[in-house]
Amino acid sequence: MKLNSNYDNIQNSYLFVEIANRVKKYTAANPAADIIKLGIGDVTRPLAPCVVEAGVKAVQEMGDAATFRGYSPDSQGYDFLRDAISRYYASFNVKVSAHEIHVSDGAKSDCGNIVDMFADDNTVLIPDPVYPVYLDSNVMSGRKVIFCDATEKDDFAPLPDKNVKCDVIYLCSPNNPTGSAFSYDKLKAWVDYANSMGAVIIFDAAYEAFVTDPSVPRSIFAVEGARYCAVELCSFSKTAGFTGTRCGYTVVPDELCGGKFAKMWARRQSTKYNGTSYIQQCMAQAAYSQEGIRQCKENISAYQKNANLISDALTDMGIYHTGGKNSPYIWLKCGMNSWDFFDKLLTQANVVGTPGSGFGKNGEWFFRLTAFNTYEKTAQAIERIKKIL
Amino acid sequence: MKLNSNYDNIQNSYLFVEIANRVKKYTAANPAADIIKLGIGDVTRPLAPCVVEAGVKAVQEMGDAATFRGYSPDSQGYDFLRDAISRYYASFNVKVSAHEIHVSDGAKSDCGNIVDMFADDNTVLIPDPVYPVYLDSNVMSGRKVIFCDATEKDDFAPLPDKNVKCDVIYLCSPNNPTGSAFSYDKLKAWVDYANSMGAVIIFDAAYEAFVTDPSVPRSIFAVEGARYCAVELCSFSKTAGFTGTRCGYTVVPDELCGGKFAKMWARRQSTKYNGTSYIQQCMAQAAYSQEGIRQCKENISAYQKNANLISDALTDMGIYHTGGKNSPYIWLKCGMNSWDFFDKLLTQANVVGTPGSGFGKNGEWFFRLTAFNTYEKTAQAIERIKKIL
Repeated sequence: MKLNSNYDNIQNSYLFVEIANRVKKYTAANPAADIIKLGIGDVTRPLAPCVVEAGVKAVQEMGDAATFRGYSPDSQGYDFLRDAISRYYASFNVKVSAHEIHVSDGAKSDCGNIVDMFADDNTVLIPDPVYPVYLDSNVMSGRKVIFCDATEKDDFAPLPDKNVKCDVIYLCSPNNPTGSAFSYDKLKAWVDYANSMGAVIIFDAAYEAFVTDPSVPRSIFAVEGARYCAVELCSFSKTAGFTGTRCGYTVVPDELCGGKFAKMWARRQSTKYNGTSYIQQCMAQAAYSQEGIRQCKENISAYQKNANLISDALTDMGIYHTGGKNSPYIWLKCGMNSWDFFDKLLTQANVVGTPGSGFGKNGEWFFRLTAFNTYEKTAQAIERIKKIL
Repeated sequence: MKLNSNYDNIQNSYLFVEIANRVKKYTAANPAADIIKLGIGDVTRPLAPCVVEAGVKAVQEMGDAATFRGYSPDSQGYDFLRDAISRYYASFNVKVSAHEIHVSDGAKSDCGNIVDMFADDNTVLIPDPVYPVYLDSNVMSGRKVIFCDATEKDDFAPLPDKNVKCDVIYLCSPNNPTGSAFSYDKLKAWVDYANSMGAVIIFDAAYEAFVTDPSVPRSIFAVEGARYCAVELCSFSKTAGFTGTRCGYTVVPDELCGGKFAKMWARRQSTKYNGTSYIQQCMAQAAYSQEGIRQCKENISAYQKNANLISDALTDMGIYHTGGKNSPYIWLKCGMNSWDFFDKLLTQANVVGTPGSGFGKNGEWFFRLTAFNTYEKTAQAIERIKKIL
């Protein structure tokens, strides 16, 4: 038996391990230090009350013979949830039909598994800096990956280079790690580029609920022509705090590859996946109810308040940064090796963030802060950072 | 962009669609017919009370800031569940360490995704008749698949043919669809065969909780030498009625490929999967508690009583069959084209089962009945079948 040798080419990511080690070492030497973590890439606020209520009810239904549910009738999701997601899109004027929505246990699974759809000899275009799953999942399949530089020059929302040929394009907006978001016009340029050469865009919309700027599309399907070239991954993780609860979805428009892509994805999911738990589907439905959206919005507003606090402070200090406005991430120019800046922040301000170099070569002089801590801790961290910078 | 052309080679499965169509047509013509379904491949009894209790508690914890959980610290599962699964194995004298257990949303996902571990030019050996996922997931990767005949001659539990060379072997015991189970000696022959040529066995143990015969191993790791050649897929679906709740696990022993397989699987899961919901992990832990095992066993006993009823009746009628003793499936020799038998049972007895030919060429003269209906309906179906055979 031969193992998949492509796995030998995946780079080990020591980013968060190295961060944990440095924090541990510092804390051991300075046990009194009051460390504030602004490196958290995970939600911290509890699920909305109506989501909890729906979850409790669903679990109880599973314990009663009269309402018990086995395998879902369709591995792409219950109609009640697909309809709710379709209505959610309609609420910001994007038309996506329920049958185009494929429910899953999370956007990370879909993002990893969608590579199954493509021939191995396609060329993949990935921005740098980048969420590592796009790269690693393609390296695992032995695909050729080329990078598109995202830099300060374009506020980390680059335009396509028409001289570069590729088959599959990954875009994430609002972006992880840079917090940068594509305007309609920039995203339209990518859609036109993809359509001009028959490429497919994998659009990661995990952070769409943080968008406040009306010129920033919350879905790629707000852009004309996208239905011919794009797949959209989205999630309840950031929208409704489901990082530990697990539920996401992928939108495959009817027009993509003349309908073949949707059929292939449905076949993949019905063969290699057995549907999302009824419990999570009920909880997700509640999150996209009118009351659910209102309650989830309260959590997002709390994170947005933190993000604005950080962003405004950096603006006051004259520090270049992206994000913070349409995103829980703030990507700041630290003007030095990002690990040196990490050490400076840790030792002089007792604040932990994430070195930009962990996301690619263009992150070298940048640093990521996140809005997922409490308001009090965030404000305290900002005061400390102001003192040392 | 080029799509994965291997998908063009997957056969469409019309088995359950065709069954539904024939039943629909018959019911339309005979609206008074009281149809009994013994074709169900899904549990029907509700979750155990202690599982429900754990689920409600976990959902409520997610709604409280003090106990909220985001991403799991390890995408392979919480220690509390991996420890519980390890103890479950110990309860039938199989030693599997907690770190060798990788928790997931279900055995079907793991079964589909595990093909990622292998080079595409491996040869895969699959029994016929077979659970279709083994075949389809390998066709999707473009692998060469060869079949091993399972027939009446070996009671549908075949021995390996040492002249056949292969790299990856799929075994399911107790088997879906035949209900047949490997004795220790037969399974040992497969383990020795795999070790002799460096092949890997993917062992599907989804039905292990139905084993009553002490000579039938509930895990391949009960067999000497298996830790050098096998991966085991298991699930809470049949054990604890989790088909709609979703939780499973894969055991990768340290010895497999000198530890490389476990590292690769962990890397695959941490890249393309984001951990199983905290809620399901708590529910699964409850199912494997002392009280949980007792409560789940009550459900399994009810299915076993149905299985025995069918099996005993067939024995009385002198009809050759496998399963029914260590399995919720009964695989009977219908002695005619299996679709003709389907029609005969439907029209003369108003009983629905599954034609064996849907699982492979060796199923042609066979038919599957299942034990997942109620006792009353099962007994009624048996009386009707007795009258027409």
